[in-house]
Amino acid sequence: MLRLKTPGHERFFQSPEFEATFGGGEANVAVALSNYGLNSGFVTALPDNDIGQHAINEVRRFGVDTSMIRRSGDRVGIYYLESGANQRPSKVVYDRAGSSICECGPGDFDWAKIYEGARWLHITGITPALSQTAADLSLECVKEAKKAGVTVSCDFNYRGKLWKYGKTAPEVMSELVKHVDVGIANEEDCQKSLGISVDVDVEAGELDTRKYEALSEKVLELYPDMKTIAITLRESMSADRNGWSACLRERGGDFKLSRRYEITDIIDRVGGGDSFASALIYGLNAYEDRQQSLEFAVAGSCLKHSILGDFNRVTVDEVEKLMGGDGSGRVQR
Amino acid sequence: MLRLKTPGHERFFQSPEFEATFGGGEANVAVALSNYGLNSGFVTALPDNDIGQHAINEVRRFGVDTSMIRRSGDRVGIYYLESGANQRPSKVVYDRAGSSICECGPGDFDWAKIYEGARWLHITGITPALSQTAADLSLECVKEAKKAGVTVSCDFNYRGKLWKYGKTAPEVMSELVKHVDVGIANEEDCQKSLGISVDVDVEAGELDTRKYEALSEKVLELYPDMKTIAITLRESMSADRNGWSACLRERGGDFKLSRRYEITDIIDRVGGGDSFASALIYGLNAYEDRQQSLEFAVAGSCLKHSILGDFNRVTVDEVEKLMGGDGSGRVQR
Amino acid sequence: MLRLKTPGHERFFQSPEFEATFGGGEANVAVALSNYGLNSGFVTALPDNDIGQHAINEVRRFGVDTSMIRRSGDRVGIYYLESGANQRPSKVVYDRAGSSICECGPGDFDWAKIYEGARWLHITGITPALSQTAADLSLECVKEAKKAGVTVSCDFNYRGKLWKYGKTAPEVMSELVKHVDVGIANEEDCQKSLGISVDVDVEAGELDTRKYEALSEKVLELYPDMKTIAITLRESMSADRNGWSACLRERGGDFKLSRRYEITDIIDRVGGGDSFASALIYGLNAYEDRQQSLEFAVAGSCLKHSILGDFNRVTVDEVEKLMGGDGSGRVQR
Amino acid sequence: MLRLKTPGHERFFQSPEFEATFGGGEANVAVALSNYGLNSGFVTALPDNDIGQHAINEVRRFGVDTSMIRRSGDRVGIYYLESGANQRPSKVVYDRAGSSICECGPGDFDWAKIYEGARWLHITGITPALSQTAADLSLECVKEAKKAGVTVSCDFNYRGKLWKYGKTAPEVMSELVKHVDVGIANEEDCQKSLGISVDVDVEAGELDTRKYEALSEKVLELYPDMKTIAITLRESMSADRNGWSACLRERGGDFKLSRRYEITDIIDRVGGGDSFASALIYGLNAYEDRQQSLEFAVAGSCLKHSILGDFNRVTVDEVEKLMGGDGSGRVQR
Amino acid sequence: MLRLKTPGHERFFQSPEFEATFGGGEANVAVALSNYGLNSGFVTALPDNDIGQHAINEVRRFGVDTSMIRRSGDRVGIYYLESGANQRPSKVVYDRAGSSICECGPGDFDWAKIYEGARWLHITGITPALSQTAADLSLECVKEAKKAGVTVSCDFNYRGKLWKYGKTAPEVMSELVKHVDVGIANEEDCQKSLGISVDVDVEAGELDTRKYEALSEKVLELYPDMKTIAITLRESMSADRNGWSACLRERGGDFKLSRRYEITDIIDRVGGGDSFASALIYGLNAYEDRQQSLEFAVAGSCLKHSILGDFNRVTVDEVEKLMGGDGSGRVQR
Amino acid sequence: MLRLKTPGHERFFQSPEFEATFGGGEANVAVALSNYGLNSGFVTALPDNDIGQHAINEVRRFGVDTSMIRRSGDRVGIYYLESGANQRPSKVVYDRAGSSICECGPGDFDWAKIYEGARWLHITGITPALSQTAADLSLECVKEAKKAGVTVSCDFNYRGKLWKYGKTAPEVMSELVKHVDVGIANEEDCQKSLGISVDVDVEAGELDTRKYEALSEKVLELYPDMKTIAITLRESMSADRNGWSACLRERGGDFKLSRRYEITDIIDRVGGGDSFASALIYGLNAYEDRQQSLEFAVAGSCLKHSILGDFNRVTVDEVEKLMGGDGSGRVQR
Repeated sequence: MLRLKTPGHERFFQSPEFEATFGGGEANVAVALSNYGLNSGFVTALPDNDIGQHAINEVRRFGVDTSMIRRSGDRVGIYYLESGANQRPSKVVYDRAGSSICECGPGDFDWAKIYEGARWLHITGITPALSQTAADLSLECVKEAKKAGVTVSCDFNYRGKLWKYGKTAPEVMSELVKHVDVGIANEEDCQKSLGISVDVDVEAGELDTRKYEALSEKVLELYPDMKTIAITLRESMSADRNGWSACLRERGGDFKLSRRYEITDIIDRVGGGDSFASALIYGLNAYEDRQQSLEFAVAGSCLKHSILGDFNRVTVDEVEKLMGGDGSGRVQR
Repeated sequence: MLRLKTPGHERFFQSPEFEATFGGGEANVAVALSNYGLNSGFVTALPDNDIGQHAINEVRRFGVDTSMIRRSGDRVGIYYLESGANQRPSKVVYDRAGSSICECGPGDFDWAKIYEGARWLHITGITPALSQTAADLSLECVKEAKKAGVTVSCDFNYRGKLWKYGKTAPEVMSELVKHVDVGIANEEDCQKSLGISVDVDVEAGELDTRKYEALSEKVLELYPDMKTIAITLRESMSADRNGWSACLRERGGDFKLSRRYEITDIIDRVGGGDSFASALIYGLNAYEDRQQSLEFAVAGSCLKHSILGDFNRVTVDEVEKLMGGDGSGRVQR
Repeated sequence: MLRLKTPGHERFFQSPEFEATFGGGEANVAVALSNYGLNSGFVTALPDNDIGQHAINEVRRFGVDTSMIRRSGDRVGIYYLESGANQRPSKVVYDRAGSSICECGPGDFDWAKIYEGARWLHITGITPALSQTAADLSLECVKEAKKAGVTVSCDFNYRGKLWKYGKTAPEVMSELVKHVDVGIANEEDCQKSLGISVDVDVEAGELDTRKYEALSEKVLELYPDMKTIAITLRESMSADRNGWSACLRERGGDFKLSRRYEITDIIDRVGGGDSFASALIYGLNAYEDRQQSLEFAVAGSCLKHSILGDFNRVTVDEVEKLMGGDGSGRVQR
Repeated sequence: MLRLKTPGHERFFQSPEFEATFGGGEANVAVALSNYGLNSGFVTALPDNDIGQHAINEVRRFGVDTSMIRRSGDRVGIYYLESGANQRPSKVVYDRAGSSICECGPGDFDWAKIYEGARWLHITGITPALSQTAADLSLECVKEAKKAGVTVSCDFNYRGKLWKYGKTAPEVMSELVKHVDVGIANEEDCQKSLGISVDVDVEAGELDTRKYEALSEKVLELYPDMKTIAITLRESMSADRNGWSACLRERGGDFKLSRRYEITDIIDRVGGGDSFASALIYGLNAYEDRQQSLEFAVAGSCLKHSILGDFNRVTVDEVEKLMGGDGSGRVQR
Repeated sequence: MLRLKTPGHERFFQSPEFEATFGGGEANVAVALSNYGLNSGFVTALPDNDIGQHAINEVRRFGVDTSMIRRSGDRVGIYYLESGANQRPSKVVYDRAGSSICECGPGDFDWAKIYEGARWLHITGITPALSQTAADLSLECVKEAKKAGVTVSCDFNYRGKLWKYGKTAPEVMSELVKHVDVGIANEEDCQKSLGISVDVDVEAGELDTRKYEALSEKVLELYPDMKTIAITLRESMSADRNGWSACLRERGGDFKLSRRYEITDIIDRVGGGDSFASALIYGLNAYEDRQQSLEFAVAGSCLKHSILGDFNRVTVDEVEKLMGGDGSGRVQR
Repeated sequence: MLRLKTPGHERFFQSPEFEATFGGGEANVAVALSNYGLNSGFVTALPDNDIGQHAINEVRRFGVDTSMIRRSGDRVGIYYLESGANQRPSKVVYDRAGSSICECGPGDFDWAKIYEGARWLHITGITPALSQTAADLSLECVKEAKKAGVTVSCDFNYRGKLWKYGKTAPEVMSELVKHVDVGIANEEDCQKSLGISVDVDVEAGELDTRKYEALSEKVLELYPDMKTIAITLRESMSADRNGWSACLRERGGDFKLSRRYEITDIIDRVGGGDSFASALIYGLNAYEDRQQSLEFAVAGSCLKHSILGDFNRVTVDEVEKLMGGDGSGRVQR
């Protein structure tokens, strides 16, 4: 997906210019995992034109395998982004209708080949929101993954502006999530993607972590094949200042709550959830101790807030340094 | 239409940045006419989102009346532009499917109100290329103009990459052009939009003006209600160097050939045809002498090649100075 | 007025570049009102050269009526701006002497025509500071407005660097303010423009709102024709962090104090007062409840601090969302 | 003088940005001479504000002595510049009224101190065009130079948009030029600054060098104390392509005509005359052979056309390489 | 190698900014070949720091295999580049001493693994110019290639500013070239790298192709194992305008001379030779007909002159379109 | 030293661009002192190429005397800088090996001439870290200063990544510091440059000022010729938010602790220590009262955190305004 962002904190068209980079849920996760030193690939469809080619190039730059990308369809989806500041929120205008992936459906990908040698699939709730065929394809994708013995993680990612083809998010997602091993969400995603309600006010300040405990229990109850659920806790004080933490529960394990980071001069919030998902995937694979896994996920995504663009450009060393307690921001020289 | 151009002469995504301006045939003509001091308005459809609003703002900046613009649909059409240099041509990637105007059709505009007090309508062959409904709307638009006593000019503008909805350009355009008073075209447009063939090789150097004489005659023959036909003669030596002239024939008048300009350091060719159309409209209204009208059109569009962006940002004084023979480029101070 | 700002937070000439936009008290108010959906016009004088024309174009872009602008004189006034950060204040260097408006005087504008159909005039204390003729013109302007039954608001706006033609601010302003219906000021403006003193230390932290109550009373006492006085309360902790609130008193009404906003990552403070004035004008017209009017004014101007440039680029929806309590800065998607 | 140029070849305010550099006749000459390794100083007046200070800093960067600059007055003069392309000329909008130097007059500079140890004074016809006091000051300046035994060169530099204070250029300049040792001009300067007419059409192509021979003779005849006259021959084919050469006559010497350069992709023409003046001053001092002096002047100013900004950023080595015949533009590595 | 170029045509430090891209002979060839759809890899040494990593990323973006790059040493070599214009040449300042590759020597690379499955090695005369160990490594590299049955091409690339470690270019290169199958050079490279002299004046205009015929014969004579020699013919009229063609001789074949391109608005000359080498390698592999191979090489490198940066960003389709005669630069839409 | 910084807060190579400015300990101090109105000169070695020349020009711009700079060696040292944000620290990659100053040694500078008329020498612990010859030169430099009666200040500046030539910092620095009159350091410098340990945890929050008292005592004890020691106290909460204060002890005087500044939106931390050193030198010379000297040093360096680039671009007036208590950041107009 092409991301067209205004320069700095400008509103749309203050300058006749867009920062033009690429991003989107699954791409963001693939890039971050490659930055953590894992082998990752990106599976999507992109048109056979220059814009499609450069979407591939940009992901390839980080070492992501792009050989499984299908070249079909007519356009690369776009989102326009205006960066907020203090009380003014960032603003996203989607222009994704008719993009290549919207027009794909079941049968368009050779899953056997894709999953050969693979260990993990990550998918988000954004793809099934795009079109009926994309939803069908998403379901096929996770089912085939399970069949191939591949672990499936899914970020439920609710995007209200996208669900327009006649189905509600819970209708589609509750089916898809049945096949998920590791669920990833924020409170609003649980509520709007899965229809699981809790009464935490997302606009407010201090968060009640007991609600999150209840919420994670409820998700595991409703989805008996899910092994792990991780939920992020964002406290939005302003566009520039957020509290950031997360919790995790494994089936049969304790409810674990991470350290909380105060992020006071946010550079870019977009992609924050994806950076959590990717750091969690790394953490679940790299550490036996689930508290460590969770802390890696939170520290990795905390750092994302200091980085412009959708992609999380950090290394394992950098994340572990922050996990280890050094968030002082002293010059490294 | 949003125009996303790479900086300078860069190929796509050499820098993570696009120059983001607005343009498109009819908007370009409206802006240029307003710059010439005429009252002009722009009739189109744009989505009710920030991108649509800024398309309006940008046109309004030049004093164009935007009160007749319909707010409907989901997206602003886009074209990606990479600026060529010497032997490397400029490259356009269209992303216009699903734009607001594509989804409009007959009945969506209140022509009676729009044509109240209007004297001239300009339309291009690009709109009917977008969709069947847009083609129907275009036909309605010109018929209603004629009914209201409004003069109609049309730039035949053939765009091969656009005609995808099942009709060929000549099928649609030959009907529409029946209602046109002033036809505007280049040689390729005549051939591909109207199916009128002549054997001038558009890739080659020196042009045979007698062919143009024949061509203009043929157009007037085939379209008995057309009063005037004007054809531009572009000689492309390289992306930076073109010869530029035009010819005009009024029904019952002589074939007139303009002065020829050698343009050696082209800044931006895109919108060149529209700048010719607008300067011709001005010229036909401002000068009795048709040679003068034509010279204004050619000089006005010659200057466009020195201006970045789709819009022709020149005044009548500047064009008349060039018509008067001063193309020396001496500093004005 | 042309605003030449250094890029980002750079000091003058760190880079050989200026951001070049337009602004100035009355223009800022006209643009903001147009953004709120009201019909607004801008009355000023600008030279008949390219810089003057583009000042017009930039205001016209927002839908402001520019047909009443007089084209005369030789230059567009300039202010150079260097954006501060933390303990380093922003710095303004004025270069306004000899600008077109400085050289205008009584008789230069056709007030009858200007006020035809108008409901509201807004003027600032900056224009009368420029020259004796500009002061005379300002007085004529407000008197004619009153005669035409037009409501007059005035931002007292004290600018110490400008009053150089031999009169003090109170000498001129106390006469002009007699004709004002709605007075707008900060504490320093009251003191230095009108000579009304209170002992609030503008450099200090917590503000004593009772002083503001007394101050507003005093203004209404001294100017018996004034119906409403609104005063902004800015607490400057640093160039990046301000407290922001305001109070309002209507003749015969209660003293009303607004909600207070903590603004922690200011993008641009310049134009903050104008954004308050424009939002107040909107608020006074849109809401019966004066507390609501005031809250709109404060919320609208709070948002201005997040926007680069003199103009307040916000909509009624955005302001009302903040008034309604959502200042969390969550991404809108 | 502050130079505010649009980016690239953009027309005014296509982007909200100006390139902000410093320039102006005498500054340009001082900088170029310092780049040639000579000791040079710049004498002017600049306001005691940040803009004035940075004008000093920018000149000081090149090693020019700025200790003789007077800090007085209120503003730095400005010129707005829009860079032309092919048939569209570059455009200058002056905003110099009220600048510090305009308000200086005789007695404001301590010439005895300034000329102590000095060998050469260079002045242009622009300063006397600004105001009566500046004209008087200019005359004082050259008279005092002659008295101090300092050689005086003067670029007659006619700027029609400036002479506004009631005197014509010839009235003032013909007096000032009486004290000049080395006159520098183009054909138009001779005609409009000194009132010496010849009939060369400056808009046309091929130049008749015999006219220049006559012209130089006539200047020396009229100004019996002038020792040398040098005239540049610019053939403007377009904003991007000029022919460039010059001629020189010493009293009692032959008429010398330089090599002619074809400059085909001009980067910046502004300051071209000043680069000729400075290279001529260097050439007259460095070479016995006047043909060499002239060739240095023409080669040095030919190179200026490849350099953005008013200042000529070239070394003696680079100029001599071009004089020696290498204009091939091969990469130096 | 990091390339630090001034913006546009600016001289060093006119703006406090460098365009920062990567390039260098062998990298340029690897990228171009990947753009032509071939599998290519890049073998070099880069330090294990961020700058080294991003050099890898940038090459990887184009699909080049970077798995054979050695991470060692302390720094990435740099070249500073100032882009020339008309008579002012581009200027390169090298800063390559102490770079990672300079400090590598024989034994540092596992050639057996590198050449496994490889068909072609390309090397330039720049690497052996850097240090004695780099020269020894270069020799090892080509010998091992020959042993592994890999075809070896070498661009003789003479860089006078580099040969500083005590050997002359011919001493080293004449040994290395013994192992080369395909020699690539310009006239100066033959002379200065190999010590083969011909009397063509590289500063002059029209080229005498018979000399090139003699030169190519002489090279093949002196290097009996060389199968093919290709020589580029650049005619430098100015920094912006060059003639461009080439010749090729296969042992036992005819002397073939390519079509000549007039390149009139050069965007970037640097990397022109590398773009010829890469297009020649493609051409020799893709076409039986050696004239075709040569024409591809010349057309491919002609296009490079329109592209900013060291890398040639063109496809086979684009090159073949130009080979087929379309150099008209018409907009592709 | 050339400073290559990524734009804004970008990580390396997110955009193909570096901000390119100059900096480095001693240069930063010379520039700041010149900005404070003192006569200062910069003594170093720079290569005789364009990059070296522009390093000189940039310092000369601020009025620093550059006539004592030696032109020798091959390269200008570089540091790459990536600007941190919140929990992500800024990152410096050094590329200084082989720079001109590294290759200088004793005897290369004419100290007698350099110290003629000089009153103060400032040196940092960075130069002796570069090479053995640079360390020897540094020692010669301070010894000669003392011999010439010049006061010597030294910022101990520990840079762990630099000490690579076989000596440890304390081995070299403890000898050099014997000749220092005014020592300047932070806690880590004392420990790592001089081997004086105290147990303050530099990553933590609140600082124990008694430790600093002990530390300063210890330094004065160990270096009996040192007259004054000043130590900065930085509390790093994040990359954007620091506490900033300092302490000073004169031999025989009280321990003085400065006011503490909370810096919440840091623009650039690099050069913070140098800005303290230069403001301290000014303060020691300008004020009798050592508390005042210290407060000037802390206020001056507090302001540096609001300024992009190595150089501290502030005036005495600005620093004294902050010392006087105005850190409110109100717009100056």
